Amino acid sequence: MIQSGEFFERLKRMRDNIYMGGKLLRRDDPQLMPGVRVIMLTYDLAADPQHKGLFTATSHLSGKEINRFTHVHQSPEDLMKKQEMTRVGIHRTGFCIQRCMGIDAMNALSVVTREVDDAKGTEYGGRFRAYLKHWQENDISAACAQTDVKGNRKLRPHEQKDPDHYVRIVERRKDGIVVRGAKTHITMAAHADEIVVVPTRVLTKDEKDWAVAFAIPADAKGLKLVNRASAPRQRKHLTSPMADLGSSDAFVIFDDVFVPWERVFLAGEVDFAGRLALLFALYHRHSYCGCKPGVTDILIGLTSLVSEYHGVEKAQHIQHKIADMIGVGELIYAAGIAAAVKSEKASSGTQIPNTIYANVGRRHAGENIYHEHNILADISGGLPATLPFEEDFFSEETGDLLNKYIVHSEQVPAENQHRCFRTISDVICSGFGGVWQLAGVHGGGSPIMETIALLGNYDVAQRKRLAKYIAGIKE
Amino acid sequence: MIQSGEFFERLKRMRDNIYMGGKLLRRDDPQLMPGVRVIMLTYDLAADPQHKGLFTATSHLSGKEINRFTHVHQSPEDLMKKQEMTRVGIHRTGFCIQRCMGIDAMNALSVVTREVDDAKGTEYGGRFRAYLKHWQENDISAACAQTDVKGNRKLRPHEQKDPDHYVRIVERRKDGIVVRGAKTHITMAAHADEIVVVPTRVLTKDEKDWAVAFAIPADAKGLKLVNRASAPRQRKHLTSPMADLGSSDAFVIFDDVFVPWERVFLAGEVDFAGRLALLFALYHRHSYCGCKPGVTDILIGLTSLVSEYHGVEKAQHIQHKIADMIGVGELIYAAGIAAAVKSEKASSGTQIPNTIYANVGRRHAGENIYHEHNILADISGGLPATLPFEEDFFSEETGDLLNKYIVHSEQVPAENQHRCFRTISDVICSGFGGVWQLAGVHGGGSPIMETIALLGNYDVAQRKRLAKYIAGIKE
Amino acid sequence: MIQSGEFFERLKRMRDNIYMGGKLLRRDDPQLMPGVRVIMLTYDLAADPQHKGLFTATSHLSGKEINRFTHVHQSPEDLMKKQEMTRVGIHRTGFCIQRCMGIDAMNALSVVTREVDDAKGTEYGGRFRAYLKHWQENDISAACAQTDVKGNRKLRPHEQKDPDHYVRIVERRKDGIVVRGAKTHITMAAHADEIVVVPTRVLTKDEKDWAVAFAIPADAKGLKLVNRASAPRQRKHLTSPMADLGSSDAFVIFDDVFVPWERVFLAGEVDFAGRLALLFALYHRHSYCGCKPGVTDILIGLTSLVSEYHGVEKAQHIQHKIADMIGVGELIYAAGIAAAVKSEKASSGTQIPNTIYANVGRRHAGENIYHEHNILADISGGLPATLPFEEDFFSEETGDLLNKYIVHSEQVPAENQHRCFRTISDVICSGFGGVWQLAGVHGGGSPIMETIALLGNYDVAQRKRLAKYIAGIKE
Amino acid sequence: MIQSGEFFERLKRMRDNIYMGGKLLRRDDPQLMPGVRVIMLTYDLAADPQHKGLFTATSHLSGKEINRFTHVHQSPEDLMKKQEMTRVGIHRTGFCIQRCMGIDAMNALSVVTREVDDAKGTEYGGRFRAYLKHWQENDISAACAQTDVKGNRKLRPHEQKDPDHYVRIVERRKDGIVVRGAKTHITMAAHADEIVVVPTRVLTKDEKDWAVAFAIPADAKGLKLVNRASAPRQRKHLTSPMADLGSSDAFVIFDDVFVPWERVFLAGEVDFAGRLALLFALYHRHSYCGCKPGVTDILIGLTSLVSEYHGVEKAQHIQHKIADMIGVGELIYAAGIAAAVKSEKASSGTQIPNTIYANVGRRHAGENIYHEHNILADISGGLPATLPFEEDFFSEETGDLLNKYIVHSEQVPAENQHRCFRTISDVICSGFGGVWQLAGVHGGGSPIMETIALLGNYDVAQRKRLAKYIAGIKE
Repeated sequence: MIQSGEFFERLKRMRDNIYMGGKLLRRDDPQLMPGVRVIMLTYDLAADPQHKGLFTATSHLSGKEINRFTHVHQSPEDLMKKQEMTRVGIHRTGFCIQRCMGIDAMNALSVVTREVDDAKGTEYGGRFRAYLKHWQENDISAACAQTDVKGNRKLRPHEQKDPDHYVRIVERRKDGIVVRGAKTHITMAAHADEIVVVPTRVLTKDEKDWAVAFAIPADAKGLKLVNRASAPRQRKHLTSPMADLGSSDAFVIFDDVFVPWERVFLAGEVDFAGRLALLFALYHRHSYCGCKPGVTDILIGLTSLVSEYHGVEKAQHIQHKIADMIGVGELIYAAGIAAAVKSEKASSGTQIPNTIYANVGRRHAGENIYHEHNILADISGGLPATLPFEEDFFSEETGDLLNKYIVHSEQVPAENQHRCFRTISDVICSGFGGVWQLAGVHGGGSPIMETIALLGNYDVAQRKRLAKYIAGIKE
Repeated sequence: MIQSGEFFERLKRMRDNIYMGGKLLRRDDPQLMPGVRVIMLTYDLAADPQHKGLFTATSHLSGKEINRFTHVHQSPEDLMKKQEMTRVGIHRTGFCIQRCMGIDAMNALSVVTREVDDAKGTEYGGRFRAYLKHWQENDISAACAQTDVKGNRKLRPHEQKDPDHYVRIVERRKDGIVVRGAKTHITMAAHADEIVVVPTRVLTKDEKDWAVAFAIPADAKGLKLVNRASAPRQRKHLTSPMADLGSSDAFVIFDDVFVPWERVFLAGEVDFAGRLALLFALYHRHSYCGCKPGVTDILIGLTSLVSEYHGVEKAQHIQHKIADMIGVGELIYAAGIAAAVKSEKASSGTQIPNTIYANVGRRHAGENIYHEHNILADISGGLPATLPFEEDFFSEETGDLLNKYIVHSEQVPAENQHRCFRTISDVICSGFGGVWQLAGVHGGGSPIMETIALLGNYDVAQRKRLAKYIAGIKE
Repeated sequence: MIQSGEFFERLKRMRDNIYMGGKLLRRDDPQLMPGVRVIMLTYDLAADPQHKGLFTATSHLSGKEINRFTHVHQSPEDLMKKQEMTRVGIHRTGFCIQRCMGIDAMNALSVVTREVDDAKGTEYGGRFRAYLKHWQENDISAACAQTDVKGNRKLRPHEQKDPDHYVRIVERRKDGIVVRGAKTHITMAAHADEIVVVPTRVLTKDEKDWAVAFAIPADAKGLKLVNRASAPRQRKHLTSPMADLGSSDAFVIFDDVFVPWERVFLAGEVDFAGRLALLFALYHRHSYCGCKPGVTDILIGLTSLVSEYHGVEKAQHIQHKIADMIGVGELIYAAGIAAAVKSEKASSGTQIPNTIYANVGRRHAGENIYHEHNILADISGGLPATLPFEEDFFSEETGDLLNKYIVHSEQVPAENQHRCFRTISDVICSGFGGVWQLAGVHGGGSPIMETIALLGNYDVAQRKRLAKYIAGIKE
Repeated sequence: MIQSGEFFERLKRMRDNIYMGGKLLRRDDPQLMPGVRVIMLTYDLAADPQHKGLFTATSHLSGKEINRFTHVHQSPEDLMKKQEMTRVGIHRTGFCIQRCMGIDAMNALSVVTREVDDAKGTEYGGRFRAYLKHWQENDISAACAQTDVKGNRKLRPHEQKDPDHYVRIVERRKDGIVVRGAKTHITMAAHADEIVVVPTRVLTKDEKDWAVAFAIPADAKGLKLVNRASAPRQRKHLTSPMADLGSSDAFVIFDDVFVPWERVFLAGEVDFAGRLALLFALYHRHSYCGCKPGVTDILIGLTSLVSEYHGVEKAQHIQHKIADMIGVGELIYAAGIAAAVKSEKASSGTQIPNTIYANVGRRHAGENIYHEHNILADISGGLPATLPFEEDFFSEETGDLLNKYIVHSEQVPAENQHRCFRTISDVICSGFGGVWQLAGVHGGGSPIMETIALLGNYDVAQRKRLAKYIAGIKE
C-alpha cells in the first residue's frame, strides 16, 4: 500500500494527454483536481487504522496486507467486504468513489485468463498474475474501459462501415499488439495510473481482432483522453468535503496504441470475449449493490436534514418517503449480500457473485435513482434551484440581507441553512448532480441491460412448469 | 414426525367448535377440506426423502429429525432453510402454505420466555421447552392468534369501553388462568391442532391482564372459531393440485377459556408484551421473504404460460414485465437472505433475523402484490373474468362449441387452454384470489406496519450526520 | 321511453337460450336477476324527473324525449352529458351500469353506415336510421358484441385453420345473411333485448365474409349465450342497493344465425370494417371517461368511510391517498371533457370524440384500477378477506359475540361496521369484485390497445421536428 | 403591442439593481441575455401574423388588439387560448416561456380588487383597471412575486421573531405605503418591466400589515434583485434556438420600498389575502396545464429523435415509453381544458378556471417530471453525461477523431449526432436542466400544495354518502 501523496506524485509525472475544452491539460489542472482528490481518498482510507480489514485485505498472492481496491475476491466474505467498503467510501464523498471499476475488471480477468488457458492452453493466467502482483505492490488505480462507441447499433463489429467503431487489433507484432478505436464514458481515466480494457459484447468467430483485453498506462503513446470533468460550482468561503471533490469521464481514443504481450490478456479468443464482458459487468453490478446504498444514505441524510431545517421532520408524508428510500437502499444492499451468499468459485479460485441477485440489485438502483432525487427535490422545495450564488452571501451589498432572510429558526444559523441548501443544489440541481443522476441510471449497466441479463439467466421455464403443475396441465 | 393421515385422524377426533354460514361444522366438512389438505401436504413433504434437510431439521432439544415446521432456528442457515422450505411449499400449493405462523410464534416464545426468566426469575423458559418437546414429538400444527379486535383504535387496551376488546386474563386460579376476548384474521385455526396466542402490541404497566401468551388445543372448552373458508370454485372434471386446496380464516372467540399454567408463557409481565408481539411479527415477516417469492414464481409461471398460449411470449413488453416480477420476487428473497446473514443469537440460543432486512423484504412484498396481479391480468386479457363455468364445457348443448372456440392453435389442446384460464381465474378473479390478494398486502403485517418498524429501527440520525459531514456542517 | 317493468316483461317473454353451469336458464332466473336489475335501473333513472335532460335527450330523428342510452350524439354537449350520465349511473350501482355499450355501437354505426353509403352508394344509412327509430321508440337495451375468439393470434381471420374463429357470413340469401362464429366477453347479453354486432379489427380485401355488422334479438334462433353471472354473495338480512345488483358476461355463439337485410349494417365492405371497429372502441373509451370516475367516486367514498370507522380519517397518509384517487378519477373525467371539446362532426351529423383524449383517459383508467383497489385494501386492513359470513352475525351461537367484537366506537353501530366491511369485501375481495377489477383493466379496451391507438394517431413526428428545431438540426 | 426591440431598449434604461455572483450587473449583461431573449420572443410571437388570435387578444377595456400576455380572460375560450399559447411558446424555447406569471397575477387581481370593493366599498377595482390599461398599452412584462421567505414554518407571519420574514407594510403615508421583506424564487424578475406582488397565504385579523398587494417597476428604489441566471453552457460553434436562451430566478429584497397608492391593490383587508394568494396560484396552475404539455412535447421529440439516431426507434419498449409521455402531457392538457369548460365568471367579469381540474392537472405535471426525464435519460444512454465539451469537437487535436467516433450511421451526420446529444445534455444533465427539473416539481406550486388544494375543495363527503348509499348505511 502507498500513501495518497505518492499516488499524486506519480500522477504528476505522467505525460500530458488529457484534452478538455479544446486544451491540453496537466493532470493536476485545477479542473481535474476534484476528481484526483477522490482517488487520493481511497489511499487515505486504507491507511486509516479504523478501516483495517475493510479498506484493506490480505493478498492471496503475497499474503501481504493490500488495499482492498487491488484485491481479487477469494470468498463470499470478500464480496461482502467489498460492498461494505464501497458504501463507506461513498459516505466520505457523497457520490461515486470511482476506484471500484479497475478492480472489478481485474477480478473478471482473473477468472477468464484462467478459463482461456484451461480451454486453449494459452498463458494468459500467468501474465495476469504477474500484472496483478504489480498492481498490488504498487497500489495501482485504474479505470476500466469497456464501452465501445459502437457505430451502427444494428451491425456487428465486423460489419461496421468503420471497423474502428469497436476497439480492435490492427497489428500483431512479435513484442505485442497495436490497437485502434475508442471507448466512451470512461470514468476516472484522467486520474488513473492505468487503463484496463475489456470487450463490450459477445463476439462471433469473424471477430478475432475485436476479441482483445489488455492494460496500459493512462499516458501511453497514442492514447488521447478527451475529458469532461464534473464538480460542484467552486466555492470560496463555504468549503466542505463534497464541495472539493468531483469526477471525470473520458472519451478514450486509441490512436494506434502499442501494448506489449505481457499486458495482453485476450487476443483473438472470440468465444471468451462475451464471458469477459459479462463478468466485468457482473462484478461492477455487484459493486453497485454497495455503492448505491451509500448514495441513498446520503440522500436520506439530506432529506432528513432539510426537513428538520424546514421544521417538518416529523410529518408523516416525509417519514414515509424516508422509509421508501430506506427500502430502496437496503433492498439493493440485500441483493448484494444474496449475490455473495449464492456466489461461486471460479477455476482460478476467484469468487464470482450470483448473476440473478447482482442484476436485480443493480436494476433496482437504476430504476429508482430519479425517484429518490424526486423525493429530495420534493421535500427541499425550490431553493436548490434559486439559491443566490455563494459570493452574494458574502458581498457587502447583499450578504447581510440574504443571511437575514434565509434564517428559519434560531436553532439553525444562517450559514448552516446556506450550506444545507447549497449542498442539495449541488446534488440535484447542478451539472455535477445531473451527471450523477444519469450515472445512477446507466453507470455499470443500464436497467435494460440488467433486464436482458435477468431474462437470459433466470429459469422462467421452471416457473412455467410450476404453473402447469398447479393447473394440472401435463407437459 | 408423523404421517399426514395421523394428523387428519387427530383432527377428526376434535370437538366441533367451528361455525360457518350459521352452522356448526365438523372439521372434515367438505367446505373445510381444501384447507385441511394444505396442512396435510406439510406432513407429506417432510416425509418425502427428496426434501430431507429442507422440510426436516434436527431438533436442538432431542437431536432427532423433526419437521422443520416445528424447529427453533439455531443458525443463519436455519433461517435460510426456512425461507427455502416455504418457497418450495408454495410451489406445491400455488398460494399460502399456512403452517409457518405457528412455528414463527414458537420461535418468538423461545426467545422471550428465556428473556423474562433472565429478567424476573420466572419459569417460563422451562415450561416452553416442555411444550416445544410436545410439539416436536407430536408434529403439532398450530395457528398463531395475535391480532386483537382492538375496539377504538385511539384508546389503549385498558381504556376501552369494553375491556374484552383485547384478549385478557379475567381470572387467575391456582391451576391456571381464564381468558376472554377475540382474535381476528386467524388463518388455519380451523385445521390446526393448537392455537398459540401472543399479544398484539406494546403494553403499559396498567395492562397486566392483557400481557398474556399461551397455547391451547383448537377445540378447547369456551373456544369458538367463526370461520371463513376460501377455495377455488369446486371442479368436477378438471381437478388439479391447486383446485383442491384452500384456506380458512377464523374469528377466534375466547368465551372464558381456561389455560393451565404449563401452557401459559406470559401472564402480566407487561414490559415483555411488546417484545413478544414484535418478535412474532419479525419471524413472520422473515417467513414472508420465503413465501412471497414462491407466490411470485407461480405468477411468473402463469404469466409466461398464458403469453405462450396467446402466442406472444417473446413480445418485449411481456418479457420486460416478467423481468419486473423477477425483480420483485428475488429482491424479497434477497432481503430474507440478508436478514439471515445479519441475524443475531438470543440468550436462548435462538437465531433472530435482522429487523431492517426482514422489514424491507416484507414491505416490498406488500407494496407489489397488486402490481404483480395487474401484470398477470394485463397479459391474460379478459377471459379469466368471463370464462364460462366448468360445467358448460362438459354439457351436451355447449361443450363442443366452447371447446371449438377456445382453441388458439393446434399446439395447445382445448383442455389445456381451459385449465390455464380457469387457474388464472382462480388466482386473480375469484373470491379465493381476492382473499390472497388482500393477504398479500396485510398478511404478516401491512406495509404501513413495516414502514413504522423501519422508521423505528433505522439509524436515520447517522445518515443525517453523513449529510452534515459532506456539507461541512458542524454539529 | 318505457318503464322498467315493461322492459322486464319483454325480457321474460324471450326464448330461453342462456346456458350457465350446465343448465338452460330462464331470463328471470335468480342467478340472473342481479344483472337484470341494473338494466331496469337505467329505465328508472330516465323516468326520474330529477334526471331529466341528463338521462334523457331529445331525439334528432323524432324530436321526442328519449332515454339518453338510445341517443346519437349531435354535439360536444351531448358527449359531455353522456359522460355525466354514466358517472351518475355508477353512483347508483357502485359498479358498471352496462347499458352504454349498445348505444356506443349505435353511434359508431350511425357514422359508418353513412360513410359507406357516401363511398359506395349502398343503403346502410337508411336501414340504420329505421333501426334507430325502432330503438328510440321501444327504448331498446342492447349488448354490443365485438371481440371475436380470434384463434391463432398470429394469423389473420381468413388464414385461421377454423374460419369460424372470427364471426363471418356463411351464406348470403335474398332476404338476409347467415352468420357463424362466437364473440366473447359480451357483458349484459343475458339481459339485453338485442345484440349489436360489429367487427373486431381492420380487415383486408380477402376478408369480405368477416366484414359484417348487424343487430339481432338476443334470443334469435341459433344464438346461444353461455353466460357467467357475477354478483356479491347473496344476503338475507343486510340487503343494500349494491348487494342486489350484478352483471353477466356471455360467450355468444352464432350457430348459423339468420339476419334479415334490414338489420344488416355492413356486409363485405372490408375497407370500413376497421373504421367501425375503431369507432365503437372510441365511443366506448369515451364512455369509460365517465364511468371510471364514477367507480373512483365509490372507491374514494369507501376509503373515506372505512378510515372514519377506523378513527384515522385525518391521518396524512390516508388523505394523500385519497388525493391520489381524486387525481385518477378527475384526470380521466377531464380527458373525456377534452375529447368532447375537441370532437368532430361526422358526415352523418354524429359527434365523434377526439381520439387522443378518449384514449389517454381510458388508458389512465386501465393503468390505475389495481392501484386504486390497492389503496382501498391498504386502508381497510384485512377484515374484508376474513369477515365471517353474514349468517354468523345473525345466528344464536355467534351473532351477539361477533357484534360485541366488531364494534370500534360508540358512534358507529355494529351493523354499520358490518355493512361497511361487507361492502368492501364485495368490492375488493370477492369473485364479483375480481371480475370488475379485471374489467377495469380490459373492459372497453386494454391499456395496450390504447397505447397502440395513441401511437397510431399521435403526431410524434411533429414533436421530433420541435426537438430538431430547438437543437438547431436542419431537416 | 410593442416590438421586442422597444422592450429591450426599455430594459436597458432601467436602474442597475441586479446582483449576481457578488457583482452589480447591467440588465443586458451577457449572463442575463439568455433570459432577456425569452421575453423578447413573447413580443415577436405576438407580432407574427400566423399567431394572430393566439398570442394576441382583444382587450375588454379598449377593444384593441393586445398581446395575450396582457389580457384578462373573459371566457372559457380565453382560458383555452392561454393554454394553447403557452404550449406553442414552449415549442419555441424548449422550456419555460416565463411571461405567464405576470398576467396570472393580473387576472387574480382583477377578480379580487372588485370583490374587495364589493365587500368593503374600497376603490381598488378602479385603480387596478387603470393599471391594467397601462399594462395593455405599454405591453408590460412583469414578474409576480408571491413566495415569502417565511422564517419559522410553524409560526404565523405576525408571530415571527423577525416580522420582515413576510413582506409587510412598515409605513402608511398619504401618498402611498412603504414595504419591507423578501420574496424568493422570483422567475424573470431580472428581465421584467415590473414586479407584481401578492400575498403568499391566508392571513388572520392580526396580520393587516401583511395583507398587501401592489405593483412596482423592477428597478424601484430600495429594491434589490439577487439573481441566479441559468442557461445552457455557452456555445461557440453549434448555436441553436435553445442554446441561446435561459432564465433567471431572483431573491427579491424590499429594503423599504415606497409604493404610491395608485399601485396598491390590497392594504390591510386580511380576509381577502388568502383569496388573492389562492387565485394567483389557481391561474398559474392553469397556465401550467398549457406549459407542461409543451415541455412534454419537447421531451417526446428528443426521446424520439435520440432513439432514431440510436436506430431503435421502433423498439416496443421505447414506443411504450413514448406513449407514457403522451399520456402525461395530454392528461395535463385535458385537465386545463376541463378547468376552462368548468370555469366560472367572477363579479368583475373575469373567467376563473375550475379549482379541481387546474389542480389535478398541475399535480400530475409535478408528479411526473422526474419520470419523464428518467425516460429520456434511459433512452439516451450515458452520453449526455460524458459528452466531451464543444471545443474538443472543433480542436485540431481531437475534433476529427471525435467526429469519426460519434457517428452511428451514414444517414446522420456527426454534427447532428453532436447537436442531439448536446441538447439532451443541456436538458437533463446540466445546471440549467436541473433548475427546470426542480421547477417542474415546484414551479407554480408543489404537488403537496395541489394535494392540499384538492383535499380542501373536493367534496369527499359526497363520495362518502355514495358509499353509504350503496352499502345500505343510513346516515
